[in-house]
Amino acid sequence: MKEVHWLDVVSWNKDGLVPVIAQEGQSGKVLMLAWMNREALQQTAFTGEAIYWSRSRNCLWRKGETSGNVQKVKSLRLDCDNDTVLLEVEQMGGVACHTGRHHCFFQVLQDDDWVTVEPVQKNPEEMYGI
Amino acid sequence: MKEVHWLDVVSWNKDGLVPVIAQEGQSGKVLMLAWMNREALQQTAFTGEAIYWSRSRNCLWRKGETSGNVQKVKSLRLDCDNDTVLLEVEQMGGVACHTGRHHCFFQVLQDDDWVTVEPVQKNPEEMYGI
Repeated sequence: MKEVHWLDVVSWNKDGLVPVIAQEGQSGKVLMLAWMNREALQQTAFTGEAIYWSRSRNCLWRKGETSGNVQKVKSLRLDCDNDTVLLEVEQMGGVACHTGRHHCFFQVLQDDDWVTVEPVQKNPEEMYGI
Repeated sequence: MKEVHWLDVVSWNKDGLVPVIAQEGQSGKVLMLAWMNREALQQTAFTGEAIYWSRSRNCLWRKGETSGNVQKVKSLRLDCDNDTVLLEVEQMGGVACHTGRHHCFFQVLQDDDWVTVEPVQKNPEEMYGI
């Protein structure tokens, strides 16, 4: 019986991408959702660092390549439908979000309004040198 | 200044959907990823129970409507790009996955293979009466 390559098990969408959730192992926080193509997932598994596909820039995006906020990957999981990946990561620098916050989900619905409830920990201008 | 309706803040994709991560509040486990359209998100906020959009059945899908495994929603969060929602939920019945497992991410990458590492807790035939 021919074995299926692990990358072929993944159910890629029509753009060849899969959504990827990054969760911080230590805190359990959901840091962000991003996307990977086949090459990004392969390189993530090979290098042990999260490498996504940037849909806005149309290129591989090594998380932290500019900011230094690299994600060390502790485990990769796939869901029951094979169409979502969950990464357990260690977030270098303690900041996953480009706004300088710990994670990207800092807006909470309160009284029919999205309210920002978490502080900026690092100045984005310093992270990105702009 | 005209206030923007909270549902209009969400950056819906070209199919009118947004990916939604359900995380169990108590354990911190990422239970599943599913999708919502505008009506699903509105009904989720209004009812306090997770209502998704089924892309396979093309209809609203009240989580647990058949299985009883309803998700009580404790908070709704939106990410920095306004294109992903994070729900903090209480998972009724302790089972989020249609396979009868606690959560959907039960396949772990080990030695270039996706290995099932979590047990079935409820018989799917009993959950769905099939």
